[in-house]
Amino acid sequence: MSYLRNIWYMAGWEEEIAGEALLERRLLGRDWLLYRQQDGAYAMLHNRCPHRFATLGQGKRKGDSIACPYHGLAFSAQGTCLHNPFSERIPPHARVDAPPVVARHRAIWFWAGDPRKADPALIPDFSAIEVDQPMVHGHMLFPAHYEIITDNLMDLSHTEFIHEESFRMQGKFLAGEHRAQEDEDGAIWSKWTFHNTPRPAWLKDVAPEARMDEWLDMRWHAPASMLLEVGFTLAGEARDAAPMPPFVNPHILTPETASTTHYFYTRQPGEEAEAMTRQVFEMEDLPMLEAIQQTIGDGAEGEAFWDLKPVVLSVDAAAVRARRRLMKLRREEAQA
Amino acid sequence: MSYLRNIWYMAGWEEEIAGEALLERRLLGRDWLLYRQQDGAYAMLHNRCPHRFATLGQGKRKGDSIACPYHGLAFSAQGTCLHNPFSERIPPHARVDAPPVVARHRAIWFWAGDPRKADPALIPDFSAIEVDQPMVHGHMLFPAHYEIITDNLMDLSHTEFIHEESFRMQGKFLAGEHRAQEDEDGAIWSKWTFHNTPRPAWLKDVAPEARMDEWLDMRWHAPASMLLEVGFTLAGEARDAAPMPPFVNPHILTPETASTTHYFYTRQPGEEAEAMTRQVFEMEDLPMLEAIQQTIGDGAEGEAFWDLKPVVLSVDAAAVRARRRLMKLRREEAQA
Amino acid sequence: MSYLRNIWYMAGWEEEIAGEALLERRLLGRDWLLYRQQDGAYAMLHNRCPHRFATLGQGKRKGDSIACPYHGLAFSAQGTCLHNPFSERIPPHARVDAPPVVARHRAIWFWAGDPRKADPALIPDFSAIEVDQPMVHGHMLFPAHYEIITDNLMDLSHTEFIHEESFRMQGKFLAGEHRAQEDEDGAIWSKWTFHNTPRPAWLKDVAPEARMDEWLDMRWHAPASMLLEVGFTLAGEARDAAPMPPFVNPHILTPETASTTHYFYTRQPGEEAEAMTRQVFEMEDLPMLEAIQQTIGDGAEGEAFWDLKPVVLSVDAAAVRARRRLMKLRREEAQA
Repeated sequence: MSYLRNIWYMAGWEEEIAGEALLERRLLGRDWLLYRQQDGAYAMLHNRCPHRFATLGQGKRKGDSIACPYHGLAFSAQGTCLHNPFSERIPPHARVDAPPVVARHRAIWFWAGDPRKADPALIPDFSAIEVDQPMVHGHMLFPAHYEIITDNLMDLSHTEFIHEESFRMQGKFLAGEHRAQEDEDGAIWSKWTFHNTPRPAWLKDVAPEARMDEWLDMRWHAPASMLLEVGFTLAGEARDAAPMPPFVNPHILTPETASTTHYFYTRQPGEEAEAMTRQVFEMEDLPMLEAIQQTIGDGAEGEAFWDLKPVVLSVDAAAVRARRRLMKLRREEAQA
Repeated sequence: MSYLRNIWYMAGWEEEIAGEALLERRLLGRDWLLYRQQDGAYAMLHNRCPHRFATLGQGKRKGDSIACPYHGLAFSAQGTCLHNPFSERIPPHARVDAPPVVARHRAIWFWAGDPRKADPALIPDFSAIEVDQPMVHGHMLFPAHYEIITDNLMDLSHTEFIHEESFRMQGKFLAGEHRAQEDEDGAIWSKWTFHNTPRPAWLKDVAPEARMDEWLDMRWHAPASMLLEVGFTLAGEARDAAPMPPFVNPHILTPETASTTHYFYTRQPGEEAEAMTRQVFEMEDLPMLEAIQQTIGDGAEGEAFWDLKPVVLSVDAAAVRARRRLMKLRREEAQA
Repeated sequence: MSYLRNIWYMAGWEEEIAGEALLERRLLGRDWLLYRQQDGAYAMLHNRCPHRFATLGQGKRKGDSIACPYHGLAFSAQGTCLHNPFSERIPPHARVDAPPVVARHRAIWFWAGDPRKADPALIPDFSAIEVDQPMVHGHMLFPAHYEIITDNLMDLSHTEFIHEESFRMQGKFLAGEHRAQEDEDGAIWSKWTFHNTPRPAWLKDVAPEARMDEWLDMRWHAPASMLLEVGFTLAGEARDAAPMPPFVNPHILTPETASTTHYFYTRQPGEEAEAMTRQVFEMEDLPMLEAIQQTIGDGAEGEAFWDLKPVVLSVDAAAVRARRRLMKLRREEAQA
């Protein structure tokens, strides 16, 4: 496993770290502690005291500092040691890692590499998810490498098969048009268009015609921050003439370890949406992706995946581009 | 762990794969899917789609083909791709391994090596177990290397100790005569004879004399396919004068992984026989063999076993021959 | 992990091995069987038959010998084979390891190295724990390397933090005086003195003055056999004028494996003391030390610990000396 370093990863949702909360989370194979400072800024500390390596998050928060539960060394939100209970002297190398961390679009993002390169302008634009209506900001752990999950999201045609009962697409993906696309900013798109499909019942009030065009655009930014847009127009009309705004949903992945991944998503509130999420994510996707992880192991990532000589289908075009981009970025970091 | 390749292994019982059933089973460290074709022949496929490595056995069977649960690629019983839902074009290397598989003696056997060498005549003769009376065809998983279990079966004198309460042999094995023997076809025999022992009560109706001779012959074929024959004659008479036919029981082992083994056996129907099987196999043999596996680990197999400098007793003669035969066969395959 | 060999380790308490009991215990990464011989001496055997590696402790004890549960080979308390059920001949190398083992101070000690060097005079003096009043001789397993637990015990200032609620020291350790000391016999001491502290309520009857001096002396012998003495004098008076004898408690650690440790201790009888022990050991220390083990893994021991560049505080002086002594002893054994 080789984690990309000079890139922004999502660490959690803002609402997971409200008030005085201490959030302990394993990210990129290391344990971190996240919390909100009193001025509203966020803090992220290596969750390991440099003295005897106790877990800082089990200690006490006093204002913006954290005191180790074991011997009371206290650290600032910047990772410097502020207090040694046994002496006036602060040991010179008593500090913990504190990577750059910022809030954007209701999410907390951290920079895993050289802090001098941590430009918040490089965080992908997820402003579309900052909607007015209340949404549940969800998080689950998937027992699979993030590239296995990326393959899944960058080719939604699997909806016809593994989610056949849940979504009843009835062949739309098979008859639809699929296109992979790359933007200059590094985005890779997996775009589906379904032409001249029957109007869904729930669109009757806003769409006078009985036939529609639909689109599903999944946008990817390295390492695995995705945004899905789903929209409808009257058949043959342009997207900007759509009778209603498209739905947008984040699908943002951050590796917990080499074989487990944090999955951040949003959904409508309410029991029905909760049950649907559980069915689709936990009952359908998760066991299949877990089995793939068990089967291919280290083959999930980079060149090792291609060593398995996977069959490539036309619908894999966008997923394959994302894999190749990651390989290129890893090579560049390894050379630098 | 190095699995012998050019040899027949038992994959399961015919009745485990009846009708439309899909049987998923790990064999020799890989996942396989077994099913019966509509013409009665058996199929065995690597249980891993070559596209994104999903588990084929979680997909759908249509006739003799299996459609992957993830994106619907369909494969024949021979492992060739028959259908790509996204294109008329079948990707040229879209195929899964399908080793030779045949049914013999109510069991399914597969050939793990070069298919051109897969001669069904090489399957050991288990016709003796094709009896008319109804028998339960059993299967359990043992958490031990198959050579540890083979040692157990090729020296039944352990019955006096670990199965003391269950079988109450009362020293027959200690007073008995033991002989190891090799046949030209590769069979190795572990043969016990108990002379002039008291007639069991249940033999009273067929045996007029109060004293009997008994024999227990365990026959082994590589890698670990064993058949036990237990018979009784009147004391001093020849075997072919036995008042009743001998009992025969298969003890056929197939490695699941380097440290776990499929154990195939038969038993009488009914609760009493089921309870006896559970007591002897699961309560007595299994915990001891599991502890041995935990203790010697990689030392279970081949040369590594002898590196542990085990004490060798006279009663080990047949078990040691089987171990030596396996070492020879592995060396021959490694050189070829 | 590299275990010190030419040294005494505690294997258990005498009362764990009373009468005919067979005690199976993993020590230094190997399985052992402990029992008391009929003449009162103790026996310790490698818990693995040299024939087929079954677990001797699952067999039968007859007098001072142990018969293997698998094929009945019987071994003496000295590890020699006494009986082969299948032959008059005892296989010449049929023997199991039987290290030197002696009872001292109600504990059983074994020598893990060259038996010729096993001088019982080298067992640290724990005669102070052979008290008249009834004590519970306790044992628990800690999921951490013994050096992580040694750090904990050789710096009791953590009592102010992790045990704040349980012991309410209210700053005594922070205001107290700490001294590390080494004796010529190899003992390392971590000594705390608290000057002029309020007299505890329960000392009212024996101490007329309202102010006391207190001391806590933790004595360490390699590899991790510790004794704690806690005493009180009237403020300003010498220790030998103490109004009552000090409390003494053993804290003796023996590695089970590279990452788990046997912890032997004593406590007062009764529910209150039991609850206190559970709270302090299992609820407070154990989870923190387990987390440290998970975090630093192989870094728990020897040079690898220093490679983690731990911050060193003044209160670590004794714990650091113990770590350095172990490194020196390991180097000496490696060179010999």
